[in-house]
Amino acid sequence: MAHTETVPADMQAAVLTGFGGPEALELQRVPVPVPGPGEVLVRVAAAAMNNTDIWTRQGAYGLPGRPDALAGWRGPIEFPRIQGGDISGTVVRPGDDVVGDWVGRRVLVDPAIYDGLGDDANPIGLLGSEADGGFAEYVVARADQIHDVSSSPLTDEQLACLPIAYGTAMGMLERGRLRDRETTLVTGASGGVGLAAVQLAAARGAHVVALTTPDKTAAILDAGAAVVVHRDPDPTTTAAAIAAAVARAAPDGLDAVIDVVGGPLLPAVLDQVRDGGRWVIAGAVGGAGIELDLRRLYLHTISLVGSSMHTRPHFRRLVDDAVTGVIQPHVAHRFSLEAIHAAQEAFARSDYVGKIVLTLHRQPD
Amino acid sequence: MAHTETVPADMQAAVLTGFGGPEALELQRVPVPVPGPGEVLVRVAAAAMNNTDIWTRQGAYGLPGRPDALAGWRGPIEFPRIQGGDISGTVVRPGDDVVGDWVGRRVLVDPAIYDGLGDDANPIGLLGSEADGGFAEYVVARADQIHDVSSSPLTDEQLACLPIAYGTAMGMLERGRLRDRETTLVTGASGGVGLAAVQLAAARGAHVVALTTPDKTAAILDAGAAVVVHRDPDPTTTAAAIAAAVARAAPDGLDAVIDVVGGPLLPAVLDQVRDGGRWVIAGAVGGAGIELDLRRLYLHTISLVGSSMHTRPHFRRLVDDAVTGVIQPHVAHRFSLEAIHAAQEAFARSDYVGKIVLTLHRQPD
Repeated sequence: MAHTETVPADMQAAVLTGFGGPEALELQRVPVPVPGPGEVLVRVAAAAMNNTDIWTRQGAYGLPGRPDALAGWRGPIEFPRIQGGDISGTVVRPGDDVVGDWVGRRVLVDPAIYDGLGDDANPIGLLGSEADGGFAEYVVARADQIHDVSSSPLTDEQLACLPIAYGTAMGMLERGRLRDRETTLVTGASGGVGLAAVQLAAARGAHVVALTTPDKTAAILDAGAAVVVHRDPDPTTTAAAIAAAVARAAPDGLDAVIDVVGGPLLPAVLDQVRDGGRWVIAGAVGGAGIELDLRRLYLHTISLVGSSMHTRPHFRRLVDDAVTGVIQPHVAHRFSLEAIHAAQEAFARSDYVGKIVLTLHRQPD
Repeated sequence: MAHTETVPADMQAAVLTGFGGPEALELQRVPVPVPGPGEVLVRVAAAAMNNTDIWTRQGAYGLPGRPDALAGWRGPIEFPRIQGGDISGTVVRPGDDVVGDWVGRRVLVDPAIYDGLGDDANPIGLLGSEADGGFAEYVVARADQIHDVSSSPLTDEQLACLPIAYGTAMGMLERGRLRDRETTLVTGASGGVGLAAVQLAAARGAHVVALTTPDKTAAILDAGAAVVVHRDPDPTTTAAAIAAAVARAAPDGLDAVIDVVGGPLLPAVLDQVRDGGRWVIAGAVGGAGIELDLRRLYLHTISLVGSSMHTRPHFRRLVDDAVTGVIQPHVAHRFSLEAIHAAQEAFARSDYVGKIVLTLHRQPD
């Protein structure tokens, strides 16, 4: 199945030149990267967009003790940087010491940069942040972090939806030990991670209560939620009102919360979590600084589980789901690489359900 | 080994008559309780004292949303109530349907009231709080929650030190997945739970950094700590100063924190926790309300693990340690039941290391 393919000397890429607004992201011709030992060159078929692409461009992550400092999620970013961690594509060239006949294979790239080789290793970096990513025609990936998805029924664009959003959701469900027949609240359920969490939680037999805005209700129920609780876009909807609505939707309490919102919602809804429950947090679009009563945690053996991306075992489980087609990512809008600024504007409007994807190369027929 | 023993009709007990000061605790003659089906009557040999005995008397636990309400750790308390969850003794009478020949056996009582029968069940009550405990000559216990410690080298008083303090510490280490060669910070290291955590963590091969006051240093090092960081009793010692001292003592960061202090220390020292680290909290003598930056948790896959007491597997592991004598609880002071008010005064002074124990019956020779 391997076929030789000419790789050009340079390529089109969206290059982040520094922290800033949309103008910091420039379309440039840059050299095609060369895979080093143990690496491969992947021709990008599709690359999905995520909040991290926006927040990294803005430097919005802050630093320990300096929350307003300009920084990426792990601290400083080296510029220029090609963003984009959600990559599906085809292997076109191996570096030295690559085991296996990868050339020509359709692959999904695990974008995590791990702090070790084992299954317990933690992600401490990400393609598109600490190394160049897939908002370009080609990308370099580690050969031991590409996964053959030739037999998946999903399209390249659907596959590109998986690594960050579904990987993050899978990491949350696994770290939160969500089991079948448990009741879970998924916040931000129409977002990339939230929608993935609804699908993955329902697929494992959990009773999913989803928090979303009224206009997204049908899509969230379609994704597998049993009940939808409305977070009115009206800013006067208080955390206490949401907590009361959650209590009505889950009168026996919550076993787990899959949360990307944080903020005042967390302490307000924490009272609904049962003994032994897990509140898994992977983001804080509602505010990162919270006031917490530790007694709620230790008197009820409740854990507040920070979850960053996924581990290797989580990603393998996700690839299995992709190959069997258990999950069906929804592509909301597609753009060309050249239209990346329009894509980011569409992303910021949040008036869609599913993922926004940049389509790079069509698969060869 | 069973020998019949006459059980009197009534007994001496320290009876909590309501929430309040020391005057709420009265020495009274009360009827000896009768074991129901599946229960046994235990003649109390020794009963250790814990913070929970004081806080329950004071009603200091608060209620969800009403932190100043008078309440026990689970909410309302039924009065009169005999406190005391740390009980060693001898089985003197079985109720109906008790399997096994327990009469005459020396036992350690698991004081937890669980929400189910399996190994995953959570403690939702405690002898001495939601049911009568061991500050009395006799106590009723569930036959499936007494453990034969006849062959333990520990004294009855040492055994009575184990259930709450060592059980809580064991629950923290297990829920925090503390492994050998990991670095752990133990706060409040001279307290009952803290000292137990130092011993249990050192016994499993962890590198223990202990936070305590200067006068307790020798005792904490003796218990197995590798390094002691001083929390000066001077209240001007800020959380930031302690965090800096912890950073010097553990320059590569912390894998786990075993914490009963909470308060401003938690957010200050959280920056020292490594990726994938666990901060286990089982108390908050330094303050229950904290301000937390959720980004520290989710960007570094750090968990804040609330830990209440122990599970059945944790308690079994503790009984194994008691029988083999791996751990050696230190009895700081002993009092008779009649001297319980003096015992609580001594407890409140906190000028000792180890446990304060009420000695009830001597073992028959």
